[in-house]
Amino acid sequence: MHSISYYQEKMSNHFSQIVANKEPKNLYEPIEYILSLGGKRMRPVLTLMASEVFNVDCEKAIPAATAVEVFHNFSLIHDDIMDDAPLRRGNQTVHEKWDLNTGILSGDAMLILAYQFFENYEPATFQKLAKLFSKTALEVCEGQQYDVDFEMRDDVTIQEYLKMIEYKTAVLVGAAMKMGAIVAETSDENADLIYDFGLNLGIAFQLQDDYLDAFGNPETFGKQVGGDIIENKKTYLYLKAIEFSKAEEKQQLLHLFSIQPSENTDKIESVKAIFNSSGASEATKKAIQDYTFKAFETLEKMDIENEKKTVLKAFGENLMGRNV
Amino acid sequence: MHSISYYQEKMSNHFSQIVANKEPKNLYEPIEYILSLGGKRMRPVLTLMASEVFNVDCEKAIPAATAVEVFHNFSLIHDDIMDDAPLRRGNQTVHEKWDLNTGILSGDAMLILAYQFFENYEPATFQKLAKLFSKTALEVCEGQQYDVDFEMRDDVTIQEYLKMIEYKTAVLVGAAMKMGAIVAETSDENADLIYDFGLNLGIAFQLQDDYLDAFGNPETFGKQVGGDIIENKKTYLYLKAIEFSKAEEKQQLLHLFSIQPSENTDKIESVKAIFNSSGASEATKKAIQDYTFKAFETLEKMDIENEKKTVLKAFGENLMGRNV
Repeated sequence: MHSISYYQEKMSNHFSQIVANKEPKNLYEPIEYILSLGGKRMRPVLTLMASEVFNVDCEKAIPAATAVEVFHNFSLIHDDIMDDAPLRRGNQTVHEKWDLNTGILSGDAMLILAYQFFENYEPATFQKLAKLFSKTALEVCEGQQYDVDFEMRDDVTIQEYLKMIEYKTAVLVGAAMKMGAIVAETSDENADLIYDFGLNLGIAFQLQDDYLDAFGNPETFGKQVGGDIIENKKTYLYLKAIEFSKAEEKQQLLHLFSIQPSENTDKIESVKAIFNSSGASEATKKAIQDYTFKAFETLEKMDIENEKKTVLKAFGENLMGRNV
Repeated sequence: MHSISYYQEKMSNHFSQIVANKEPKNLYEPIEYILSLGGKRMRPVLTLMASEVFNVDCEKAIPAATAVEVFHNFSLIHDDIMDDAPLRRGNQTVHEKWDLNTGILSGDAMLILAYQFFENYEPATFQKLAKLFSKTALEVCEGQQYDVDFEMRDDVTIQEYLKMIEYKTAVLVGAAMKMGAIVAETSDENADLIYDFGLNLGIAFQLQDDYLDAFGNPETFGKQVGGDIIENKKTYLYLKAIEFSKAEEKQQLLHLFSIQPSENTDKIESVKAIFNSSGASEATKKAIQDYTFKAFETLEKMDIENEKKTVLKAFGENLMGRNV
């Protein structure tokens, strides 16, 4: 096993070459651009790491890892169009830098390119990877649709919310790890267990993202703290606060989530106070712990060396140990 | 071998069930809608027909044929967004009936769904089908991009135009037929030959579409005759007219293709006159014949019963025998 930065390094060279010099330029330059914006490359790193958990050199997992990252960036391009987002990783989004049609078509091409990376494997492995990929990609689309739908609904349940973040975010984390397992040709049991590990860690991570969006340290949290509150986003914190708060507090929260003041400081503080007093903050921290614990439990069942379990657990602890 | 209508009938029942009752409804209802709009289902029919050319019951080719049609409809949804088209087959386009985001996301889901149909085949066949599909799908994206690019250029060559229609339209016809050959597990030679048959017939068909758009019978041609001229589209007819016409005629044609009058009757008649006098009409008819002949030539090389060759040739003659 190697360090995260070793795997990140392994991946970093690949993205610049994928579509270099391909024609037509107007289709492939936006793809080169989005792939060059960087990011932590967490998903492909997990694919490489998973292959080495099952004692196969991560070199063999690079095409599958590349497919995962190309797919992830496809979804960023199309999501940014749907959210009308001007910026991605501090740079212009593709549809802003070029136009809507370029964003749509370059995204489509990336989804297809992702499948092509599986062609590096022989038929049985190819089919397993492509099957898992299609299932996952469709769930990501479904998750995105649920997210869009929820904006217009005021009766979203905690269960529905959890399914949405599972589909939109966590399944790709699970699938990234399972792809490493498939490439390593480990047992189906091991492959399913590492999927569950990634899935539960992915849910925990997304819940933590919800929590940090309100309570994170502005110095270290990558995004604007309070952003979800400003946008009236029905996160886990909000849904729990609605569930737990008494009549008066609930009315206040519903009101705060119906307004869009030009100055948000007061709104953010009031909402956070209700998140705390209602017990929503505690419930969210508890849920994060529960999902993290669930992830670690699956490790116990895996048929791998204890040293490997320690590495995966350390990775999970590191990931979830982001400061509040 | 069976009749076209037999294969059409075979396919027609499948499209209504593909995403029936799947959730979320806002993702899957647009998919059900576009697949219900019908059309001649020419591409999946070709897949079924090709499997029977190689003596395999077309039942076995239905999943591959379905993938082809689902992909084709994915490309219609996204193309209609890019062209800002209000109507498709006489009905509202998906982004008109729902909205832009629905069109993007439902299209994405269809591209993934198309791949899933290949999961009905065992690994070696699955890989061959998915590989051909990815290559073809990417070429279709490239063809669409070339088409978009060409709108802004005034130096498009005949060669570039032919490559564009090959990618945008003809490769999917070739791939549809080759998929039938792959499912039938015929020789690679036969599979490549039927691909070439479909490809060349596809190019001939698209060139004929260009021709009929100007010179077709308004009573029988499905679209508005003169539509390409009204939109100043640089078709084969136009590019050949620019190549062949003398200085004065050429200036007139360039002028006519720079204006957008409210009344188009005069413009259409003037352009058609130049298409005829310059020899562009004759050159286009010649090209249609040449590509059709090229398609028929590949039939001769195929290792199949003569009866099968006769059926394929009859199909091609029928397709190209649309009245001018």
